[in-house]
Amino acid sequence: MQPTAAIVVIGDEILNGRTADKNINYLARQFYERGIKLAESRIIGDDEELIIKTVRALSQRYDMVFTSGGIGPTHDDITTVTIAKAFGVKVIRHPEANQRLVLHYQGTGLDYNEARQKMADIPEGAVLIDNPISAAPGYILGNVYVLPGVPSILQAMIETMGDQLPGGVKAFRLTVQTEVGEGTLAADLALVQSRHHGISIGSYPWFKPGAYGTALVVSGLDENIVKAAADDLVGVVARHGGAAYIDDQVVGGNTPAA
Amino acid sequence: MQPTAAIVVIGDEILNGRTADKNINYLARQFYERGIKLAESRIIGDDEELIIKTVRALSQRYDMVFTSGGIGPTHDDITTVTIAKAFGVKVIRHPEANQRLVLHYQGTGLDYNEARQKMADIPEGAVLIDNPISAAPGYILGNVYVLPGVPSILQAMIETMGDQLPGGVKAFRLTVQTEVGEGTLAADLALVQSRHHGISIGSYPWFKPGAYGTALVVSGLDENIVKAAADDLVGVVARHGGAAYIDDQVVGGNTPAA
Repeated sequence: MQPTAAIVVIGDEILNGRTADKNINYLARQFYERGIKLAESRIIGDDEELIIKTVRALSQRYDMVFTSGGIGPTHDDITTVTIAKAFGVKVIRHPEANQRLVLHYQGTGLDYNEARQKMADIPEGAVLIDNPISAAPGYILGNVYVLPGVPSILQAMIETMGDQLPGGVKAFRLTVQTEVGEGTLAADLALVQSRHHGISIGSYPWFKPGAYGTALVVSGLDENIVKAAADDLVGVVARHGGAAYIDDQVVGGNTPAA
Repeated sequence: MQPTAAIVVIGDEILNGRTADKNINYLARQFYERGIKLAESRIIGDDEELIIKTVRALSQRYDMVFTSGGIGPTHDDITTVTIAKAFGVKVIRHPEANQRLVLHYQGTGLDYNEARQKMADIPEGAVLIDNPISAAPGYILGNVYVLPGVPSILQAMIETMGDQLPGGVKAFRLTVQTEVGEGTLAADLALVQSRHHGISIGSYPWFKPGAYGTALVVSGLDENIVKAAADDLVGVVARHGGAAYIDDQVVGGNTPAA
């Protein structure tokens, strides 16, 4: 079994196009590696009502919710107060979080002022998530993991959590690359999918100057069935007069992850 | 006034981390330029029930909904059938779309087979969106704009639509760059925001080896008020002993759009 998860990225800067989100793809790949099924991702603005509605709905629907953004020191950082409201708990100045921030600012020449102290405010009952970069912690409240928006810090927190993050059965995935167009293969793809139990085949056309082709991605929980389906696809491509190879790296397609 | 919009990216490949979405940031920047307020973006899988629920809810809540993905020829392309179900209309083989595809495949050596003909299936009553790259059209059904997942084709369609896309008052945005940390400025940022009517200030910390700082993004619909607030911020930074400059390009911050 795979636990389910949703991501909620919070920030006006993503919606107005100024900033391109990097956290969804990072988290998606982490979840894939850990056997967590990412069911849905949302990007919403710094809007209390929509944050409350979104986080409540997703925390009921899925096993885990991960938020990103809005836990810094400034007026537009409203995530903590809003998450606390969503679950009807108080925000407290967390002694351990406060102590970490006091130590972090010592000797930096920066004042640990009221704004920065706000980063030690945590919903009552939440468990801290360590921040090895800049001390200000994330936290887990119920099934909601509250993370910062800065990608390097979010990534450091996920890496620090390591196996504390509940995972599941890891999916297995193979990519069959071919220069045959997906429209030529389409009818057969559906047949191959129906012939192998518990797998799905995604078809991703790609184009570059002077060439085109298709990345066929087979995924499932049973490695042997995925391999058999990939072999089946290579045979299908051959029957259409094309060449195909199985690529076990996560590459190819029109918009592969970096 | 700015019309509101939501984006729904449809595709398992984004959720399992194989592919990093590029369409949300492209559309967000297009909307910003055209005076459309992007209120929310969602990424969901190739899941009929969730597509229906999501598109229905967002089409009621916002002025426009833009979907991306799932309108190709293969078994995992379920967007058209699903959108038609969501709005209780039939799917028809659209004569004009079919004719464009017939012409497109003539002389390519590719068979215009049943799978490719599926790309001429359009919900009844929809208006076609031209595809200058590969002929298979997108379409508008009610307030839902149905676009493909391949970024180059999605972009070509948006550019081809040009001013047919309903826009609004364009927002104005200035970025004040400084190497003063956001925690030092936080209390003043809230004051500056309250002093200038109808603007919002976003604070985005950035870090690089040996340096850190803050990008302060002022946005609003009135250019003069935005400029006055940006000048005010430069003064605030100076009072904290720092240097700041106004950057009228959309750059800076930790994760700027490319």
